[in-house]
Amino acid sequence: MAAATAAASRERLRLWLRLLAATNEMERALRRRLRDEFDTTLPRFDVMAALDAAEGGLSMSELSRRLMVTNGNTTVLVDALEKEGRVRRSVSPSDRRSYTVELTESGRKAFGRMAAVHADWVCDLLGGIADHDAAHLSRLLHDARLAIQAGADPTQEAHV
Amino acid sequence: MAAATAAASRERLRLWLRLLAATNEMERALRRRLRDEFDTTLPRFDVMAALDAAEGGLSMSELSRRLMVTNGNTTVLVDALEKEGRVRRSVSPSDRRSYTVELTESGRKAFGRMAAVHADWVCDLLGGIADHDAAHLSRLLHDARLAIQAGADPTQEAHV
Repeated sequence: MAAATAAASRERLRLWLRLLAATNEMERALRRRLRDEFDTTLPRFDVMAALDAAEGGLSMSELSRRLMVTNGNTTVLVDALEKEGRVRRSVSPSDRRSYTVELTESGRKAFGRMAAVHADWVCDLLGGIADHDAAHLSRLLHDARLAIQAGADPTQEAHV
Repeated sequence: MAAATAAASRERLRLWLRLLAATNEMERALRRRLRDEFDTTLPRFDVMAALDAAEGGLSMSELSRRLMVTNGNTTVLVDALEKEGRVRRSVSPSDRRSYTVELTESGRKAFGRMAAVHADWVCDLLGGIADHDAAHLSRLLHDARLAIQAGADPTQEAHV
């Protein structure tokens, strides 16, 4: 019983290390390509992706929340993108102490080009995985995420 | 043909987004617990894990390589851990311009306690995944990582 529990525990630690290793490997490859091809960084790409997905721009705090980074980091990223002419800030109509960030026309076009190439890179990097394995892995990862959320949130645990 | 290719491409984009989402969910939960229970951060925990695994300490550049972060970031983390008394630096015997970082006795003990609790958290967070799914997911992720490495490294592509 104790041996079975220890084995199950080791299997889950291995699972976490492999999840992390696969994600890191992928991020490293994408990071390098974004730098070499577009002279940009993964966090800047992520900011542009979040703004592209949001009609009418986002407040700084909403942007931080979506990127899961601190407000301080978001400010640094938005400053850099503003210097590049990719985003602009405007004072929020509803709250004059806060402001909204959105892509400029040039930023939206640049992101469209990058996103298409980025999708090709992802397809290429994961091309060695057979179609049925990709679909199966996707389903398992989706279930894993839900299991993690349930485990991380005690209010959900109470219903189990 | 074009439709099949587009579907395969979408499946791999979905796989990447789910891989990233599961990893982010897990990191967010671990980050919060490390902060609440041990008043520390995930990057500091990662530095201590790397030093714990390396007998005799690591040079700053080797530590950065293992953590896959820039030397600047490593310096900030090591400074913080040094202030906490968890690590110490010593001038490298082979190269007096560089130095080695290692865990202090107190750092090693503190890491041992944290690592045991961290392993329990991982087991707990991934506990909702059935044993056979965990083993299968591990294998698929391991294969995925090798496929990504092969895709990311053109010298390996040449052999395919």
